[in-house]
Amino acid sequence: MDITAELVKKLREMTGVGFMECKNALIEAKGDLETAVTILRKKGLSAVAKKAGRETKEGLIGSYVHNGKIGVMVEVNCESDFVALNPGFQGLVKDIAMQIAASEPRFVRREDVTPEVIAAEREIYKAQARATGKPENVLDKIVEGRMTKFYTETCLLEQPFVKDPDLSIKDLIAGHIQKLGENIQVRRFVRYRVGD
Amino acid sequence: MDITAELVKKLREMTGVGFMECKNALIEAKGDLETAVTILRKKGLSAVAKKAGRETKEGLIGSYVHNGKIGVMVEVNCESDFVALNPGFQGLVKDIAMQIAASEPRFVRREDVTPEVIAAEREIYKAQARATGKPENVLDKIVEGRMTKFYTETCLLEQPFVKDPDLSIKDLIAGHIQKLGENIQVRRFVRYRVGD
Repeated sequence: MDITAELVKKLREMTGVGFMECKNALIEAKGDLETAVTILRKKGLSAVAKKAGRETKEGLIGSYVHNGKIGVMVEVNCESDFVALNPGFQGLVKDIAMQIAASEPRFVRREDVTPEVIAAEREIYKAQARATGKPENVLDKIVEGRMTKFYTETCLLEQPFVKDPDLSIKDLIAGHIQKLGENIQVRRFVRYRVGD
Repeated sequence: MDITAELVKKLREMTGVGFMECKNALIEAKGDLETAVTILRKKGLSAVAKKAGRETKEGLIGSYVHNGKIGVMVEVNCESDFVALNPGFQGLVKDIAMQIAASEPRFVRREDVTPEVIAAEREIYKAQARATGKPENVLDKIVEGRMTKFYTETCLLEQPFVKDPDLSIKDLIAGHIQKLGENIQVRRFVRYRVGD
């Protein structure tokens, strides 16, 4: 059974569950999405906060272009067009687009980092620690610390908000979920730089 | 063959060549613009061909968001930052972003369509033609015709320009290459629609 990344992504969006769990559920379900959702539910993995589980089909496309040289486009979803038109929501979308332009995240969330990238990063950090003469028994701990830093730097939701570094983007969004009373999700983004 | 002043004007804009030369080329090309450009190039009269081979590393990121629901980001490259800052070039980038929002191309150019997509399209067209009772010996010809239509609909450079459908996007760009004196290339684009 060939489980495509596209299919895993879809299940992740439906359930909010991590990459490997979704992939395994899909393998078990022979690629059938609904069966896979049921499998995750039986495992109790799809039990996220109630609001966070609600479907987001509305929202806004935001864009930000800096001097014509760096451009960002982002889709932020909410539950109703009423919230999509709310100035608070529109400001959030603008802030997120500027955040992406300034801080160059590579992924929306930690679960989007592919197992290949994680393996490659871990290997690099381990080799670096070894090269500086660190003893073998502390290498894993050092690697864990470096991975946490890696996620904070590369995953949009874990990045410190450029306008208020005490807040992560995840916190910033949680605040708006609280204020606006709807689930809010960053669905996707793209960042272009001329000549990159 | 009736060659309108309008058509001659268009060819002049595309190539920067004089009126009579353009008119003669159009008569020889039986009114086909692209053939006329080729005729002028063979005569060494159009500078477009030479410029089309030059490296493009500068340019602009353009974006266009329609009602917050459809968003486009595009990178258009030129050779120098001087041209990137030219209002004519900036207008071109804006026009291309709006074109993508309105006409939903899937690829920049014909060469970007993957062999898998081509094979799938051909198979569909063949089955459709067969289902309507067309004889086997004309199926390939029908498929070729449908593929040409497919490229015109899905490849940005082959699409008719929404603001002037007599011009393809390729022609529109060729005109700017002539006017600005630099090679211009659409490098990449992305199109988001909320909830897609």
